Amino acid sequence: MQKMSLHEALYTQRAIRNFTPYPVSDATVATILDAAVRAPNGGNTQRWSFLVIRDRETKRRFGEWYRDAWSDLVADMNLQRTSAQPYRPSMLTQNMEDIPVLILACLDRPTPGYGPNPITTGSSIYPAVQNIMLAARALGLGTVLTTLHTKHEQEVKALLGIPESVSTAALIPLGYPAQGESFGGGRRRPSAEVTFHERWGQTAAS
Amino acid sequence: MQKMSLHEALYTQRAIRNFTPYPVSDATVATILDAAVRAPNGGNTQRWSFLVIRDRETKRRFGEWYRDAWSDLVADMNLQRTSAQPYRPSMLTQNMEDIPVLILACLDRPTPGYGPNPITTGSSIYPAVQNIMLAARALGLGTVLTTLHTKHEQEVKALLGIPESVSTAALIPLGYPAQGESFGGGRRRPSAEVTFHERWGQTAAS
Repeated sequence: MQKMSLHEALYTQRAIRNFTPYPVSDATVATILDAAVRAPNGGNTQRWSFLVIRDRETKRRFGEWYRDAWSDLVADMNLQRTSAQPYRPSMLTQNMEDIPVLILACLDRPTPGYGPNPITTGSSIYPAVQNIMLAARALGLGTVLTTLHTKHEQEVKALLGIPESVSTAALIPLGYPAQGESFGGGRRRPSAEVTFHERWGQTAAS
Repeated sequence: MQKMSLHEALYTQRAIRNFTPYPVSDATVATILDAAVRAPNGGNTQRWSFLVIRDRETKRRFGEWYRDAWSDLVADMNLQRTSAQPYRPSMLTQNMEDIPVLILACLDRPTPGYGPNPITTGSSIYPAVQNIMLAARALGLGTVLTTLHTKHEQEVKALLGIPESVSTAALIPLGYPAQGESFGGGRRRPSAEVTFHERWGQTAAS
């Protein structure tokens, strides 16, 4: 992590969904989570916790929960005939128990935010999640940001003893990329197309 | 940005709330936003937009909205006698119109998530927000992640012509740090204290 430039980490981060069985040490996980807690968070209250899961049976349960929510999504996608997220079998849906580590990023008493369904509720945890993913990238480890387990939030919390006041924000599989999975920038629309100046829709600088 | 290591960027990022009047060029802002769109996002649907605000009157309005929500927070904090976020006057509450640039990070049709008040609604925008802040850091520019403007979301959207389906996730002031403001890691609890193994509360590795 000491050697990779920020630029390289940002521009070669990519979702990795298949991993080798090669183990990830506790020391490596600790290095990654130490980067996580450097992230900005509201009022520096640091209400985050990170659950490191290696237990095979727990990972298998997460696989079941993921698969269940994934089926809903695939059904919905087929209905909408969108190709934004084509169905490709991966370890997430096939054998999550074989992924070396799952990190469950949690936030206690998320700030409620304003109005109905506020987007800001996760503003004090997803920057830390991104730090996890960037630090992993710099160490040659693959990750992917998943949230589908939250369909089964109550069962997740019951299994792992997570208090009622805590929300589970992301499940991040972690391991060395399997053959055929590689880092390198994902496809993106040019940033100029999503940059507006002064008012919505105004793409040219004033 | 090419030269700074990921490690240095992560470990020296810090909330900067006061800025010099030294201008930030459109090219620099474009470099930062190009880093933003590399971030992970659900299904690679990239429903994000970034509004770059330099107009003095618009910035003044954001200052008013921020100050209003901030007053609520200070009142609440005094009530609770907490020192987590002590009140310090800054350009955010005093003269936001003098900050060179405000970036408003927006997300169209955020994924609804499961259950009431889901934390995952912002999972496809805050990783990009963190990329903005890290890229700015590497360029010597200060930022701070703010969300208080969302108390006045409807007025913000009316002023800037933002469609109903879009949520404004973060307002990120951007500029060179004023004298007395400096980069360098913020205070954090040791990461080992917020790392659990296999079950909630279990701090020692199994």
